[in-house]
Amino acid sequence: MELSVKFLDWSAGVPIVMLNNKTAEKIGIHTRDRVLIKTLSKKPRESLAITDIAKKIVGEDEIAVSSEIKERMGLASGQKVKIALAQAPESLSIIKKKLDGAHLSEKEILQIVNDIVNNSLSEPEIALFISAMYEQGTTMKETIALIKSILNTGKKLSFKSRLVADKHSIGGIAGRTTPIVVSICASTGIIMPKTSSRAITTPAGTADALETLAKVDISLEEVKKIVDKVGACIVWGGTNLGLVPADSKLIRVEKQLNIDPEAQLLSSIMAKKLAAGSNYIVIHIPYGKTAKVTKSGALKLKKKFDYLGKYFHKKLKCILTKNKGPIGNGIGPALEMIDVIKVLKREDNCYLLEQNSLEISAAILELAGKAKPGKGVDMAKKILDSGKALEKFKEIIKAQKGHLNGLKPTRFKKDILSNSSGKILEIDNKKINYLARLAGCPVDHFAGIYLYSHQGDRIKKGDKIMTIYSEAKSRLVQAVEYSKKEKSILILKHS
Amino acid sequence: MELSVKFLDWSAGVPIVMLNNKTAEKIGIHTRDRVLIKTLSKKPRESLAITDIAKKIVGEDEIAVSSEIKERMGLASGQKVKIALAQAPESLSIIKKKLDGAHLSEKEILQIVNDIVNNSLSEPEIALFISAMYEQGTTMKETIALIKSILNTGKKLSFKSRLVADKHSIGGIAGRTTPIVVSICASTGIIMPKTSSRAITTPAGTADALETLAKVDISLEEVKKIVDKVGACIVWGGTNLGLVPADSKLIRVEKQLNIDPEAQLLSSIMAKKLAAGSNYIVIHIPYGKTAKVTKSGALKLKKKFDYLGKYFHKKLKCILTKNKGPIGNGIGPALEMIDVIKVLKREDNCYLLEQNSLEISAAILELAGKAKPGKGVDMAKKILDSGKALEKFKEIIKAQKGHLNGLKPTRFKKDILSNSSGKILEIDNKKINYLARLAGCPVDHFAGIYLYSHQGDRIKKGDKIMTIYSEAKSRLVQAVEYSKKEKSILILKHS
Repeated sequence: MELSVKFLDWSAGVPIVMLNNKTAEKIGIHTRDRVLIKTLSKKPRESLAITDIAKKIVGEDEIAVSSEIKERMGLASGQKVKIALAQAPESLSIIKKKLDGAHLSEKEILQIVNDIVNNSLSEPEIALFISAMYEQGTTMKETIALIKSILNTGKKLSFKSRLVADKHSIGGIAGRTTPIVVSICASTGIIMPKTSSRAITTPAGTADALETLAKVDISLEEVKKIVDKVGACIVWGGTNLGLVPADSKLIRVEKQLNIDPEAQLLSSIMAKKLAAGSNYIVIHIPYGKTAKVTKSGALKLKKKFDYLGKYFHKKLKCILTKNKGPIGNGIGPALEMIDVIKVLKREDNCYLLEQNSLEISAAILELAGKAKPGKGVDMAKKILDSGKALEKFKEIIKAQKGHLNGLKPTRFKKDILSNSSGKILEIDNKKINYLARLAGCPVDHFAGIYLYSHQGDRIKKGDKIMTIYSEAKSRLVQAVEYSKKEKSILILKHS
Repeated sequence: MELSVKFLDWSAGVPIVMLNNKTAEKIGIHTRDRVLIKTLSKKPRESLAITDIAKKIVGEDEIAVSSEIKERMGLASGQKVKIALAQAPESLSIIKKKLDGAHLSEKEILQIVNDIVNNSLSEPEIALFISAMYEQGTTMKETIALIKSILNTGKKLSFKSRLVADKHSIGGIAGRTTPIVVSICASTGIIMPKTSSRAITTPAGTADALETLAKVDISLEEVKKIVDKVGACIVWGGTNLGLVPADSKLIRVEKQLNIDPEAQLLSSIMAKKLAAGSNYIVIHIPYGKTAKVTKSGALKLKKKFDYLGKYFHKKLKCILTKNKGPIGNGIGPALEMIDVIKVLKREDNCYLLEQNSLEISAAILELAGKAKPGKGVDMAKKILDSGKALEKFKEIIKAQKGHLNGLKPTRFKKDILSNSSGKILEIDNKKINYLARLAGCPVDHFAGIYLYSHQGDRIKKGDKIMTIYSEAKSRLVQAVEYSKKEKSILILKHS
């Protein structure tokens, strides 16, 4: 059946078409059915989509398409396309095999990943693949096949210099080391094309934090230009970049499901670093009570990353650090960025943030041969003290069409005082995160929490322990209430 | 934020709202985000939905809602509603527990089912629940909790008479026993409120077959009236009925995933029978090579059904029959209905269809005390021969606003001749199903296949083995090609 393309300036996040109810009836298509759309050209372009049905907004000879299809197929308004009911993709039976305990071949995994990228697999089907990996585990061979498949279905960055490095922190504990590490390392001539994520369940991702200063949603062509010019970038690794589209889709479903199979963790990180052209990779793995992994879990992960580094002929190092709660004072996009700038300007009291940043920078400097073994921390510290890292950071921000001024927390705020004395044994990360989200993070960039004390500090009754910032009074009230009710945000040993 | 409701006469199969891009930006909502919609009344009605974003078709102060939300919330055009970003539901962490191997409590399962019904859980999240049940298995206690939860979140039918019966065939092999069984049993005064399914992966469901004669998409109120009047019905057990909404949603995702956890099979069947008010339940389990289960699988299922029957204080009997390929001659909605009418009119040669129908009817008649043990088949045969079953069937069809005339296969057809001689060892159900779907089933009600021979029959080279019917010439050509290429549709032992 031939239909005429209509745009409604409508985006659904996934490829969706809207058919008139009479047209749908004629060709026997129901809502939620999967259809195949084909252009009429000699080399037809195709896309799969899910069907919505409407009475008035599309005519009988029309097909409205969501912006996702418009972009993928490069359609023009009024263009004729054919549609037909699509069958379930073959990769669904491959997923079923995995669910039943089989090991998948490289070819089978590529087929699944291909079908994820071209939307042949729906979100529930992707969810099934994720849970199959979660339940059945994956062999190293399967993990490598997944990495290769994610790379093969996306774009790649490449640079003239081989001195390209990257870092990744697993299960970040509030505190942005990335801007500091990138600035220190890039100021030595190491290429640092950093792609970062936005918050999904946390108060801020690195991309959200950077966005308070500069543009982060940037095309691959622009990213290449920026890195060629200033040697580094800190951008959002999202859909517009197109580096690892399969990974973006897997992560979207994974975050929705709140499960995290190891194969996907490994492949997501490795594929991103490889797609960005990195030859030197540092993986930071915080472990401990409120971190993502235990110490033994961290050691196991390290072993696997080391293996993958060798397999892909990259110099890779894992740094394991014991988690001691939030490493910065600020929690929330702008408040975390303020910490970063304080460290870069050497006016800080963010000891843990600085320490972590120096250690990660040191590992990169040593791996890339800029510092002798054991001398990386000294070198990183010198660069930081010299103001070179701050200069590099300013260059990056400028290249991303931003500037360093004007960052301040939002207008509504409330100080929270301690109602007892003692030593802080622990700060509950989950509760702190929840509190910051109640205050408006990550949507309100300037909302969040400023912590005055960290694990190990002694506080007295009446001491200011934190300030809550919010853009809406109602949100502030909610957050303050929660902070009073949840006494165990800071766990004290009374003295 | 308050917005004004707009209708686009638009159905998406799931609850979706469409926001203007400026509105979405203002409140920090992205495409695919889950939002909570609330009316402004004193006792506000709520619904969760997924967000689409559009530029022109909704204004900044408007919210367009899909028909699914309009109906659930009873909204009026222009009505003011509030919206806010919704959090992931708590039941997601319960599903995670199950995925990690825990046994769930009745309360936890009810929470999951509640969240399925009120759309708090998205399709990928429901997929995760299904795969958790598939991978971890379920205890009988969990299965019972699932049945109770499905019942508690839906409507129920009830009748004055306690003599209410139902049947279910598991993994039906083409051939419609249901209309024959319902007609035989209902003519003895047994109440038979039968709800049936539509085809999803097969050429026809009982509801599709019945629809060639009468209305099957009927509200619960009408169903009650029909059954009160003629003692039986054969309707589509779909969403409009509202008997087991949780089951409908689970099945939709399950069919999409093509996996079938046992707990869901048991609970889906039991919940439907209990919601329809049945006190006498016959479960027909075909087993063997191309059936859904093996013989030992059938025996295990029988044990579980027997347990559930006792638990819910219902008289329940399982009938196990060895699968011998298609039990009718016709495959496809109308062609299967033609077989049924031939049996009812006693002008048939559908021996297997008649035999299966009589056995299932006999079990119901004996269970409900209408026939003495061992005398059910005789009684059922007498009813069939007397024309009483045909009369009852006519009454049912009439009550469902249909009539028996005018059923004939569609205009394009092609006879397929055998190219060798021998005895039919087996008919490959999967291939026959695929062939019928190529011909246009289940969308084209009158398309399909007519088989002239069955398992065990001897055929000679040049004998007509089947006729393929189609509504479109192109489809007929495709199907004929497949039938020639796939020689093993009928597996012959050459003589």
